Amino acid sequence: MNRMDTPRNLAQEIVRAISSVVGAGPLALHEPRFRGNEWIYLKECLDSTFVSSVGKFVDRFEDDLAAFTGAKRAIAVVNGTAALHVSLLLAGVTAGDEVLLPALTFIATANAVAYCQATPHFVDSEERSLGMDAHALRDHLSSTTELRGGHCINLSTGRVIRAMVPMHTFGHPLDIEALLAVAHDFHIQLIEDAAESLGSTVGGRHTGTFGLMGTLSFNGNKTITTGGGGAILTNDLELGKRAKHITTTAKLPHRWNFVHDEVGYNYRLPNLNAALGCAQLEQLPGFLADKRRLFERYQSAFADIEGVRLVVEPVGRHSNYWLQTLLLDESFADQRDAVLTATNDAGLMTRPVWALMNRLSMFSSAPKAPLPMVESLERRLINIPSSSGLV
Amino acid sequence: MNRMDTPRNLAQEIVRAISSVVGAGPLALHEPRFRGNEWIYLKECLDSTFVSSVGKFVDRFEDDLAAFTGAKRAIAVVNGTAALHVSLLLAGVTAGDEVLLPALTFIATANAVAYCQATPHFVDSEERSLGMDAHALRDHLSSTTELRGGHCINLSTGRVIRAMVPMHTFGHPLDIEALLAVAHDFHIQLIEDAAESLGSTVGGRHTGTFGLMGTLSFNGNKTITTGGGGAILTNDLELGKRAKHITTTAKLPHRWNFVHDEVGYNYRLPNLNAALGCAQLEQLPGFLADKRRLFERYQSAFADIEGVRLVVEPVGRHSNYWLQTLLLDESFADQRDAVLTATNDAGLMTRPVWALMNRLSMFSSAPKAPLPMVESLERRLINIPSSSGLV
Repeated sequence: MNRMDTPRNLAQEIVRAISSVVGAGPLALHEPRFRGNEWIYLKECLDSTFVSSVGKFVDRFEDDLAAFTGAKRAIAVVNGTAALHVSLLLAGVTAGDEVLLPALTFIATANAVAYCQATPHFVDSEERSLGMDAHALRDHLSSTTELRGGHCINLSTGRVIRAMVPMHTFGHPLDIEALLAVAHDFHIQLIEDAAESLGSTVGGRHTGTFGLMGTLSFNGNKTITTGGGGAILTNDLELGKRAKHITTTAKLPHRWNFVHDEVGYNYRLPNLNAALGCAQLEQLPGFLADKRRLFERYQSAFADIEGVRLVVEPVGRHSNYWLQTLLLDESFADQRDAVLTATNDAGLMTRPVWALMNRLSMFSSAPKAPLPMVESLERRLINIPSSSGLV
Repeated sequence: MNRMDTPRNLAQEIVRAISSVVGAGPLALHEPRFRGNEWIYLKECLDSTFVSSVGKFVDRFEDDLAAFTGAKRAIAVVNGTAALHVSLLLAGVTAGDEVLLPALTFIATANAVAYCQATPHFVDSEERSLGMDAHALRDHLSSTTELRGGHCINLSTGRVIRAMVPMHTFGHPLDIEALLAVAHDFHIQLIEDAAESLGSTVGGRHTGTFGLMGTLSFNGNKTITTGGGGAILTNDLELGKRAKHITTTAKLPHRWNFVHDEVGYNYRLPNLNAALGCAQLEQLPGFLADKRRLFERYQSAFADIEGVRLVVEPVGRHSNYWLQTLLLDESFADQRDAVLTATNDAGLMTRPVWALMNRLSMFSSAPKAPLPMVESLERRLINIPSSSGLV
């Protein structure tokens, strides 16, 4: 069998490595696990008849999220997109503003900017964390903006750059402290998109609690799920109160009158979904331990495969390892589609990263920084089966 | 006890009449009832692990809604506000347009217009159905607009009046056919807000299926609930397809690629909520029968109380009697707050109608027609306990 001249089949090597950890397919990319009090809380919710916009599970879920993340306040909302939308509004983003976003992100981040009639301004990421590159961003802003009247002005468009929304990609915490320094120096608000990073910390502090506000998602593919759901985190109690108000139709409290004092949103998380969330949150420490163990097993399985490696949490930062991520060497980038085909054909669900936001038709004319790293990452990233139930 | 000179206490008479039908409080205004397959379907949903944005209950709920209403297509969404927002966008409402709305409506209708950067233009209602008054609207449009290039132009603002959104108040069907004629004659799109009127029909045809699109709500206080939820109804399959696309982030179907072709919305109804909806919809005929029986009992109880009457479905139209509604005679309008206080103090939850939209600060400068009837109705309407479980 010593056929040294057989060409390497990286795709099949990767199929075998994944199978050696998680067994044969079919396996989803990320499945939720319901082995705690989900059933009990759902039943309790149904029996109470309070399944909708008010109820004790909403209050409890908000309290539990604040306790887990260390945020002073958490506001449960209908999904992560809604959380981003409201956070941007409360950060003062208005029509005609620009908002700095990673080009490498899920569509929700860019859509939320569009809902504010603002324009995304795409920037590059760093290879290590896959997140917004603070160093490149500082260079970009230094050479293309100036401060006028306390606002950061994009010299080519004349627009105010009001906010930035770094996103902790696949749960890996980015260099939030360096980005906060850039935000401070250039008078830009910072909203943290922590949709994927529940359980991820930087220097022991939970992602999503560094910026003015942070956002979480509990979609079905996330580390914990409420069916659909999200949350806003903030340490500013006044902002938290505002967020609760405008996500609940901006109704003024009264025994019976229906008066609303501004254009608000119906972004409430139903109590039914919050009930599921309370049960899921109880199990989060276990899920996180399992996901870390899965990462370690994958790391062993891939140790000897040349040309591909797993993305690892940066030193001093703790990843929730939401989605396990393979990174092909640049010289193997042309194998990406073969790997995707072979793994999916074998019933092991994998996927590439999202199309870069600047390539989408509706954002193709949006301003952007040079994007060499994300253009490289786009060709090389592959997510592999990551459910906590796989170990 | 023949104290003929004792002043009448209308509030106490109303408390007694309500109690004679529904017993002593505490009673909510409207509570959901879960006595069917809610439990079974929720468990099945949880066991499948498909609790989120895809799953068989979403598909089934959409099919069941289409079958029940007779609409060619139903698209389940996260709530009624989202349904309105997307319907307006698909009707072509854009920034700077005006949209005709009843001043007497829930805030969602007006907020949805604001989300499109359009301006509500408030019009009057008729006493009989509490809905948009087609006759008054025709007079108003005839004297204040003109047709230019196929568009209805408001002569005082110069803006295009792009759409109208009549709302079937408390489930009572309005005169949709007369409004369709006005919409046709003035080149205005018609979106039906049927959030409150699931089960209500006009000439045997379900409300929400007459206009270009119709919207439903399954909030916790509605005839059936999904926790939070809504739907878009349409007989235009092409529009239905568009609605599904932009309520599900406008993602293009692909085995693994994430490409979106326009700014879309995360307005999907989670499968968990759809599971509840499927079970609720099975029981809808029973709920409707119970609500009608409750109406008849209230009608008897109030028959001999001078100065107040129940709102009755107009001839030829069938109401779901979602919220039972008292209408005080104009000469007793000054008793409204005493009635609200006495009933709520007795644990019988009642409430007045919403503050008229044109009185809210954010809409106070919006264009409006003369509003004599809704100003009168606002002083005289009271909703009383209406749960289907009360009979």
